[in-house]
Formats: sequence, structure tokens, C-alpha cells
Amino acid sequence: IVTPLQQPLMMLGLGDSVGTPSDGLRADVVIVHSFEELDAKASQARGRIVLFNVPFTTYGETVRFRSTGPARAARHGAVAALVRAVGPPGLRTPHTGALQYASDAPKIPAAAIATEDADLLQRIADRGERVTLHLKMDAHFEADVESANVVGEIRGREKPEEIVVVSGHLDSWDVGAGATDDGGGCIVTWEALRLMRKLNLRPRRTVRVVLWTNEENGGRGGQGYRDQHRAELGRHVLMLESDGGVFRPFGFGFTGSDSARDTVRTIATLLSGIAADQITVGGGGADIGPSVQEAHIPAMSLDVDGSKYFLIHHTPADTIDKIDPVEMAKCAAAVAVMSYVVADLPERL
Amino acid sequence: IVTPLQQPLMMLGLGDSVGTPSDGLRADVVIVHSFEELDAKASQARGRIVLFNVPFTTYGETVRFRSTGPARAARHGAVAALVRAVGPPGLRTPHTGALQYASDAPKIPAAAIATEDADLLQRIADRGERVTLHLKMDAHFEADVESANVVGEIRGREKPEEIVVVSGHLDSWDVGAGATDDGGGCIVTWEALRLMRKLNLRPRRTVRVVLWTNEENGGRGGQGYRDQHRAELGRHVLMLESDGGVFRPFGFGFTGSDSARDTVRTIATLLSGIAADQITVGGGGADIGPSVQEAHIPAMSLDVDGSKYFLIHHTPADTIDKIDPVEMAKCAAAVAVMSYVVADLPERL
Repeated sequence: IVTPLQQPLMMLGLGDSVGTPSDGLRADVVIVHSFEELDAKASQARGRIVLFNVPFTTYGETVRFRSTGPARAARHGAVAALVRAVGPPGLRTPHTGALQYASDAPKIPAAAIATEDADLLQRIADRGERVTLHLKMDAHFEADVESANVVGEIRGREKPEEIVVVSGHLDSWDVGAGATDDGGGCIVTWEALRLMRKLNLRPRRTVRVVLWTNEENGGRGGQGYRDQHRAELGRHVLMLESDGGVFRPFGFGFTGSDSARDTVRTIATLLSGIAADQITVGGGGADIGPSVQEAHIPAMSLDVDGSKYFLIHHTPADTIDKIDPVEMAKCAAAVAVMSYVVADLPERL
Repeated sequence: IVTPLQQPLMMLGLGDSVGTPSDGLRADVVIVHSFEELDAKASQARGRIVLFNVPFTTYGETVRFRSTGPARAARHGAVAALVRAVGPPGLRTPHTGALQYASDAPKIPAAAIATEDADLLQRIADRGERVTLHLKMDAHFEADVESANVVGEIRGREKPEEIVVVSGHLDSWDVGAGATDDGGGCIVTWEALRLMRKLNLRPRRTVRVVLWTNEENGGRGGQGYRDQHRAELGRHVLMLESDGGVFRPFGFGFTGSDSARDTVRTIATLLSGIAADQITVGGGGADIGPSVQEAHIPAMSLDVDGSKYFLIHHTPADTIDKIDPVEMAKCAAAVAVMSYVVADLPERL
């Protein structure tokens, strides 16, 4: 902030954002709380920095201001966009994440600021004072490099061509260590297969673990899997993704037929001992999405106590200490039991 | 971190620290967990960066690694000192605070790093790997400028020369807004007098609010008050400081005679309705300290639920949203009742 007071803001550039000119840019702020308000204030947005100051409710509800807000602001001539961190108030903790520019609007620099800083700007604006910011981001793009999904499997003893996929994604935002999003998801799905090996269990069908690449900024791991495995997608019995953190497991979200849901619900009773036996409506994940949609594969997500997830994910605080080993072990057990039994059913799900 | 991996650390320079050379310094890290271990590893400290990785227990126990650790490391030839943030694990939240160099040791750059980063360095070291850091701090000193305590009072109706002081300190670490340390202490003590005015209450003795300057890095506000008011210190009946945050009030810490304690405990029963009626042993504060010690004045501190205080104080997260207006109002009420009744007692405390 350069007017009406000098104050640094806690900021994180958004994924895919362009940088500012090398000496930064200086402009007044216009604050909006909805896309409708942005459209109504279109004339004020021109030449200004638009701040989307929308308190976090759910990720699905709030993340759109991060992902499409910058493009919408750019359409009205804004020179930059800021978004209130998409997460609950932390400890002056900004959250990054991907944005999507639009083909009909210029690419303007975009960053998240901490909730505390969004509140500060709001208080100043509410007093009727003009707020001027100096914004400097040296964001740039590196050339694409090749990366790969990591795949391992236990081949089924009777129907190896039928496949149950369990998965997490390897990539993360570099500001943290990616422990919760999504190192934990990788570990607990990998661990599910390791447990089967350790117990010398080989189910009727193949259980495959996939550690996806490029979930956070492109989804090309999931798309690549769909494209490379197209011929066998019809033989995928179930795809599961763990991408909500590895906190205390509640059970699974599931998308599939009613009879499959009944089966899954029955299997989940095996997990009542660790209170991970809930089957809720709606399961899926960004990486399994392309395959699931193409071949109408039953889809599952690991459901956990997500109350702390959005405090941590995409922030510098996404580090290994935030993970409880006991909770992680329970997540692995839940994935192992569910995937083993589905893979070992007499009939496919 | 430059070896064995490239990773930025979350760091805050300590108060009074010198900076590094303009292009930074590069050295290996030696981790210690006590001053004894530092002494035992003296030969390893030479030319290295010493990290004091001592998990937070209480401030009194842990802060000494921040305040005197750099000087002790310097005595052994360390080129810089880092300290694990003096506070519980936050969200990759470093905590600053003052250090004291020693006259017999060189001034080396010193900073706090987040607990997560201290843990990371520890894990690497525990694997037997060498850890090299590149440390760059552009700390510098500005010339002293004049500042002042802010003093206001309600003159006593019978014994205006006898004084009850209530107080907080105005200065704070600039990385946050200083809302909890110690804006809140200023507000609740100031508010105590405002409430008396509003209720048209004028006690027998004078109630004086002092908003201290320079608590955080020198204590010259408290020393200046002692020096300027030396003639009337003997007529100070009680000095109270609120410097532990304005969370839910429990009551007061008190240092004074047994009979004074009995009186204070009786007064505190008036606060049972807001459960702020506990009188604990030991009351004081950094600013009232010089006067209290010189003239043996009864000393009091506002006791609050401090469970979140050290998560916030001296960090970028010390912002206004961390304060609950209802808890703050209760703190003000507690200070108002206690200071009014002490000032209005027939006999001095």
C-alpha cells in the first residue's frame, strides 16, 4: 500500500499469472464482492487494480474469483487483479492457485493477498479513502518439460485385465512442501498396495496406483492417462483419488450406479472400527476426471475431516508437520480395504 | 537452503540485528538445542551458522535463545545465528523480537525461522547430511528520534497526589499491526478511564493511564517515566500493565504485600460475573518494571487466556482481526473495576 499509508501486503502470485513491468505498477484499488458488482462498477475498474474481497465459504463457491476473476477484471480494463486468499483466515497466510485467462481479455498480473490484508484494504475503502497500491511481481514462464505419471500395480490373480485405480498427485505449489496437497494422497494410495504386498494379498483383479503429474496447473497427467489407456478404460472397475488431505478419514464419496453404491456401502462396514464407513454422494478427482468422464467409470474420493485443509493447501504452511501419522495410517487402511475388496469381488462393481 | 536442496526459508530478522554483507553470506549450519550443547560444539560453530532449535515451552524458558543466543554463538566464532521461532507451530510463521549483543563478542546477523523450517533443517541434519545456507539480511539502524509516553488522568477527588497507573505500550513490531502486542493493552487501559468518565465516576485518588513508548526495543518509556516521576513514585499506590493480549480475562497477577493481596482479592470478587476474579501470584510488566522496582510499588498485570498469544505476537499475523471485541470489552471492564476501586479505597493499598 502506498496511499493512504505505507504497508507491505502478504501476497502470493497466482499460477499462470503474468508478471508486472519490472518496476511494478501503481494504481488505485476498486473492491468488489461479486461478479455482478464488478460488472456494475465496470467504469471504475478501468486502469485500476480490482480486488475480489469475497470471504471463504466453500472452495467450490469461492475459488471462481481466483480462477476467472482476473480475466473478468481484465475485460473491464483493469491493470491487475487481487483476490482475497481462498481459504479461512490463517496467520496472514496467502494462498496461491491457478487462474484461467480468457482469450478475449488481456493477461493482467494477478495475486492473492492474505485475508487480513483484504480486510485492511476494505476498512480503508469503507472510510471513503482512496487506496493506491504498488504491485510488483516478477512472474515468468519456463518452457514445458517432460514429466510422467508414476504407475505401479499388483496384477490380479484371476482377471488381471480388470483394473481398480487408486491415486494421488505428485505435483504441488512450490511455496510449501505439498505435504497435504497432495503428498499425503500419494502416500496413502501407494501404501494401500504396499499393505497388500506385505500381507501377501493378491486380489482377483489388478489394483493400480497412479501418482499423477501436473494436477495443479494443467491436468495433463490425468489427460495423458486417459489418452494412453483408452483401450482399457472400459475395463476400469473403479477409480479412486485422494486429494482432500489425509486428516481423519470419514469414508468415501462415490459416484456410480445404485447397485454399485450398495456394494460399496457394504464394503465400507469393514471400516466401522476406525469410523471410516460413511459413503457420501459424489466422488471423483481432477486427475481421474478425464478417464471417468470418457468411460463412465465408477469414481471414488477419500473423504476426510477437511476442516483444516483449506487453511493449509496452496500456502507456505503446506508442510509435513501438519500431517498426523495416525490419521495418515487410517487413511491408508481405508483405501487399502476398499480397493482390495472391490478388486476381489466375485463380480465387477 | 542451498545444499542439499534449494529451498527458501521463512525468516524474520531479529530486533537490533546487524545485516549480512550486501551479497549475503554462505555457511554450513550447526544445530544446537541448549547452551550447553553450543559450548560442547564450540569448535564446530566457528565459521558456521548456529541454529538454536529449541521447541517452544514457555516464553520465559525459550526466549533466551533468541535474546542471548546470537551473542553466545558469536563468542564461538559463528558467522550468523538463527533461532527457531519463539512460539508454538503456526502456519510457517516466523516471530521476531529483540536480541542483546554482548560487549565481548562480535555482532553477527541473527534471524528467526519458522518452526517448520527448523524441523526441515533438523531432519536433513539427522540424516547426516551437510546443510549449507545462503543468508541475506539488509538490516540497518536508523538514528534515534524523540518519542514520548502518552499520559492521561482522572484527578482524584480527595487525594489527587496518590496515583493508580494503568497502562499498555504503543510500540510494536512492524511486521504486523501490533494489535495484540500491545494495541489491545493500550485500548483496554485507556477505555477504563473513558468508562469512569462516561459513568461520571471520580475516585478518591488519581487514575492515570500511560501508553508507553519503546517497550519492544529498549524500554526507554518505562525508564523515562521512572526518571521523570521519581519524586512521586512513593505516592504510586498501584501500577498495572496489560501486555499479554486482550483475550478472555481471568483476573490479575499481583505482586505486593499480603494485606494488599487480600484487598485485591476482595475487589476481584466484583468481577466474578465475567469470571475475571482470579488473583494469581506475580504481576508486573516491562514498562512499569523500572518504577515498581525503584519504589517497591504494588504491581499488577491483566491475566488473560494466553493460549493464542505466542502464536501471534511479534509475527505478521498480529492484526486487528485476531481480537474479539467482546473479550476486549471484558478486559476493559476488569481493568476499570479494579483500578477504580483501588483508587477509591478509604486507605491506600
